[in-house]
Amino acid sequence: MPAARFNPLVETLSAPPIPAVQAWKRDYHGHLGPLIDLSQAVPGYPPHPDMLGWLGEAASSPDTAGYGDIEGEPDLRLAYADWVSTIYAAKIAATNIQITSGCNQAFMAAMMAIAGPGDTVLLTNPCYFNHETTLAMSGVKVGYVDCHAQNGFLPTVAAVEAKIADGVRALAVVTPNNPTGATYPDGLLGELFELCRKHGLWLIVDETYRDFLPLDSGPPHRLFAIPGWQDTLIGLYSFSKSFCIPGHRVGAVTAGKDVVSQIAKVMDNLQICAPRPPQAALARAIPALVDWRRDNTLEISARSSALIEVMAGAPGWEVAALGAYFAFVRHPFTDLSAYDAAQKLARDAGIITIPGSFFGQGLERYLRVAFANADVPTIRQLGVRFAATG
Amino acid sequence: MPAARFNPLVETLSAPPIPAVQAWKRDYHGHLGPLIDLSQAVPGYPPHPDMLGWLGEAASSPDTAGYGDIEGEPDLRLAYADWVSTIYAAKIAATNIQITSGCNQAFMAAMMAIAGPGDTVLLTNPCYFNHETTLAMSGVKVGYVDCHAQNGFLPTVAAVEAKIADGVRALAVVTPNNPTGATYPDGLLGELFELCRKHGLWLIVDETYRDFLPLDSGPPHRLFAIPGWQDTLIGLYSFSKSFCIPGHRVGAVTAGKDVVSQIAKVMDNLQICAPRPPQAALARAIPALVDWRRDNTLEISARSSALIEVMAGAPGWEVAALGAYFAFVRHPFTDLSAYDAAQKLARDAGIITIPGSFFGQGLERYLRVAFANADVPTIRQLGVRFAATG
Ligand SMILES: Cc1ncc(COP(=O)(O)O)c(C=O)c1O
Ligand SMILES: Cc1ncc(COP(=O)(O)O)c(C=O)c1O
Repeated sequence: MPAARFNPLVETLSAPPIPAVQAWKRDYHGHLGPLIDLSQAVPGYPPHPDMLGWLGEAASSPDTAGYGDIEGEPDLRLAYADWVSTIYAAKIAATNIQITSGCNQAFMAAMMAIAGPGDTVLLTNPCYFNHETTLAMSGVKVGYVDCHAQNGFLPTVAAVEAKIADGVRALAVVTPNNPTGATYPDGLLGELFELCRKHGLWLIVDETYRDFLPLDSGPPHRLFAIPGWQDTLIGLYSFSKSFCIPGHRVGAVTAGKDVVSQIAKVMDNLQICAPRPPQAALARAIPALVDWRRDNTLEISARSSALIEVMAGAPGWEVAALGAYFAFVRHPFTDLSAYDAAQKLARDAGIITIPGSFFGQGLERYLRVAFANADVPTIRQLGVRFAATG
Repeated sequence: MPAARFNPLVETLSAPPIPAVQAWKRDYHGHLGPLIDLSQAVPGYPPHPDMLGWLGEAASSPDTAGYGDIEGEPDLRLAYADWVSTIYAAKIAATNIQITSGCNQAFMAAMMAIAGPGDTVLLTNPCYFNHETTLAMSGVKVGYVDCHAQNGFLPTVAAVEAKIADGVRALAVVTPNNPTGATYPDGLLGELFELCRKHGLWLIVDETYRDFLPLDSGPPHRLFAIPGWQDTLIGLYSFSKSFCIPGHRVGAVTAGKDVVSQIAKVMDNLQICAPRPPQAALARAIPALVDWRRDNTLEISARSSALIEVMAGAPGWEVAALGAYFAFVRHPFTDLSAYDAAQKLARDAGIITIPGSFFGQGLERYLRVAFANADVPTIRQLGVRFAATG
């Protein structure tokens, strides 16, 4: 009797990384104070009280109990379109928006719309691991564009161009970056856009951490203002971080109408529509919580300054890159793999981080630190803690 | 300049069927009274007031705002495991449960765990369209097992066996069936299970409409009590219909632990975890709303009896199959396609149904009627309405 088998594309994936590092929590015995979890990027403060109220109101209403529109709630699509129009100084319509159940799903749905088994999508190395595993499980090949510390972990246009070949359908980048924090300048994004346009590739830009860019630095980029952007650009966003509601699962795609109609077909199969109550709450929160979001951005910048300060006093440790939510930190243990270094940091210092090797090749000296999870007083403790591992 | 292209597997899918038929609503001018929407299967009554209260409580709590476990909330996995253990007179553990964002996603995640591009999954003809499109967009081939009206739209074991060949990974069935309503007897399911086991195939059983089976008819099947079921059987369920909360998006997979750990890898990519507030509410509702669910089942049976009665008085129309939520009805228009007949029924009689042809080949004479959407007085009006199309 032959045994029923698993899909080798899934069976060969390693177990999800976050639960794997979370398991290290058990190894720390509290001798330096409470555990500090800087692994999964989760806002360390609760949602705004009004947001919780709106969520409760929407969830307890029979109006959101039924199936909703596949593309998303009309009022959220509109509120989000208006918001991104302001952010990017561009004209984005509600019909350019597809609401998804988080930004991982936004990537999955957008990716399926443009690449199939045997096609290739270019990612950076390092990359966000779920992008890599999403492609792998779908039978889409990954081409890696190496990013180097000396270039601030940004790809060069030449390095991307060198990877373009038959069957390459898209380049996907994350800015501000996960894992490194690197923020792509508008100039670089513009060049990548033109390169993609020239070769008939899609440029997928995941901007999950966009709202944590320094205030008053202008639009994150000008790509949505380029005439004809709809034929090349697909923007991804998560409401998880900025609104502190990852448990509610809402994300968005900003794309041309034709792209949205392809993605809607995928979404119908993936899950019909995103959950409706948080969509209704977000439609209210986008315009209402402007000040609160600005305060959070300021708070996260204070955390980032505190981290730079504290790491300067941790001998052997070095902040290789930093931006928005993450720092990519070089550990001092030349004889340890990133995995062993992260595990040691968990056990000896009660700090949970993610090994650089989870994000790609040649990253054994790095750890990803989601510093934005912790408040300034907690970050201040990191110096002593890091030193304790020496 | 080459244009960036779409994935042909997605581009060639037709637009989602439900919005397509919903568009016909505009063609009806109300001359026979309010429109009666029997297209998408949506409970025609609201969620229980306590359920709305629990949903609101959970959604407004900061406790469910963070990311949750990929496999689902522990208390929901446990409550659901206990419930299915009772229903199937079997021992199902919390570790056998993966919570998903609805049952379409349960199918997608289970399918990806066991079949990849180029593999084949067997469906019935007719089948639930999202199963077909989910496979198609993933590059998985579909083998169709024809089901005939004279056999109550059930597949025969011989017909399934005839389709088993190299590369076939699974047989997926829906019972009670969408679109026909046909309910698979335990004996047939047992034979299909043995056939799948013999050939190393997975048997995927979508039981979205399970809770609407006649009361006191015993377990829907005994498959979960077969020793070693974990190596062959994958059960799918939706909380959308029984709890009237499709807008909240929760479903479940019941499977062996090894299957769950493969599915969890897929889920992490698809959307990290299902939305948490409705999971918390469902953990309370499963044990608490037993009587309410029983009353609903009785109500749906009353609707089914009313439909049979009313259709007996509609000359030319015939109920070819019926069960749980759906009736598969033969229309009298020998010169019209199912599409044209459904559109005519919408325009002339204000009744929205789904053309049989949306569910497979050779079904031009049928319309799917989600009678459970409408209450008994509304169903009573259908006689006059159907007659009006003559
Ligand atoms: C770059 C990036 N994209 C997507 C996601 C997924 O976010 P969501 O919670 O919206 O699925 C994350 C979450 O950490 C992320 O870092
Ligand atoms: C057979 C079947 N499976 C799955 C689903 C999807 O249900 P959910 O709302 O849980 O995604 C439906 C919905 O109509 C269905 O009929």
